[in-house]
Amino acid sequence: MSEKHLQTGDELPAFGGKLRLFAMRFCPYAERSILVLNAKKIPYDHVFINLDQKPEWIFTFSPKGTVPALEYEQGKGIFDSNIINYYLDEKYPEVPLQPTDPLRKAQDKMLVEQLTGAQSAYYTAAFSSPSLTPSMVETYHKGLEVLQKELEVRKTKFLHGDEPGLVDYTIWPFLERFQALPLLGKQEFAIDKSKYDVLTKYIEEMKNVPAVKSYCLAPETHAKYIESRAKGNPDYNMLDTSAVCCMRPRKKKE
Amino acid sequence: MSEKHLQTGDELPAFGGKLRLFAMRFCPYAERSILVLNAKKIPYDHVFINLDQKPEWIFTFSPKGTVPALEYEQGKGIFDSNIINYYLDEKYPEVPLQPTDPLRKAQDKMLVEQLTGAQSAYYTAAFSSPSLTPSMVETYHKGLEVLQKELEVRKTKFLHGDEPGLVDYTIWPFLERFQALPLLGKQEFAIDKSKYDVLTKYIEEMKNVPAVKSYCLAPETHAKYIESRAKGNPDYNMLDTSAVCCMRPRKKKE
Repeated sequence: MSEKHLQTGDELPAFGGKLRLFAMRFCPYAERSILVLNAKKIPYDHVFINLDQKPEWIFTFSPKGTVPALEYEQGKGIFDSNIINYYLDEKYPEVPLQPTDPLRKAQDKMLVEQLTGAQSAYYTAAFSSPSLTPSMVETYHKGLEVLQKELEVRKTKFLHGDEPGLVDYTIWPFLERFQALPLLGKQEFAIDKSKYDVLTKYIEEMKNVPAVKSYCLAPETHAKYIESRAKGNPDYNMLDTSAVCCMRPRKKKE
Repeated sequence: MSEKHLQTGDELPAFGGKLRLFAMRFCPYAERSILVLNAKKIPYDHVFINLDQKPEWIFTFSPKGTVPALEYEQGKGIFDSNIINYYLDEKYPEVPLQPTDPLRKAQDKMLVEQLTGAQSAYYTAAFSSPSLTPSMVETYHKGLEVLQKELEVRKTKFLHGDEPGLVDYTIWPFLERFQALPLLGKQEFAIDKSKYDVLTKYIEEMKNVPAVKSYCLAPETHAKYIESRAKGNPDYNMLDTSAVCCMRPRKKKE
């Protein structure tokens, strides 16, 4: 599947009959749905889009043009990563990713909710650095502490259990990106290995989960994208090697 | 149950063994959970709290001190209206309020999501009136139009079906409050009966649903509360008649 991000004026590729996810390669919300599709081994196509010059057809699937959006049937879409992921987990029950206990479900959702402050701090640090305040850094670490404490209390390899679940795939895309901040001079966002020992172990385990491994990017790559976007010119296609790749000769574009 | 809002320094009333909901009488999010508890006929107590001078113990149940929060077991809480409501619906399955079809579930969630813009516009109009922009009014009406269109497409008495469900109880508290805005001079927020004919009929039906009827307040009452809050001095206890009521003589406070 292409890494090229389609933009205003580009045609919507023909529907291939499989589920199709509209995403942006560096979007953490889109990654949540990619990971769930991967983990559940659901066959799907993806289409990356340029979020600054959105192709007109994205609004058919997502009223605000946000990603991810899932084309679950030709021309019909579901938007919002959480809505998509619960839909996928219920519609395709083969690899269940949610706990069955209603209380544990609520606890998973509350954990995700308690990390939203850390996510906002990340966005500010990455893209609006001059507005960053000490209280945001504090909120970031409070989020990490809540996460580490939950891992300690649950005593399982992943938050979901011995295998990762929806809660892990929902939280991971941000943990992946948090690690880029120290490379951009934001040392105050470093995840200190001795303070966050349990969390650090969890991060290493998550990197090796097949659904994650096949999509995860190195902190250096995220840092490079963040820099481009912070400068006002996001390099959406920095991973697109289709034009220069000599390993797999490509057919002429149809 | 008392309408008095407890505040900093007030003691937490003794736990009565039932589920207990921490709420604020005029909060639309708290109302969502009250309606679900009512609709499912789950026995519960409630405790109203003053959101400007929060009692210390609210943080035991809700890390940010927000309402609603559900004490599901003595000393243990679930926060966030949506998390609480899904928990209640799954833990107490007797009166199921969600559709069983995963796609319909996703559609219900998307509808709720599409009304968040209208809700923000309401909050701005009610409490930060000078910041109101024409585009916010437009977003408000876009939300109402989406809602009316969905009612037309579904062709059922309520969004959920012949009986109201989670989607109706989630949306209702805002519809209830939207009607207060014209009374405060915000004519641009009026829900015109001829333009919004289907929606108007729905609003009338919802008012008669027992779970709603027992908690719903008149637009005039909401307007009075909004005015007090907009002036910076929210009159949380305006419905508390315990001090002046001569119908039910009250025992001396213990």
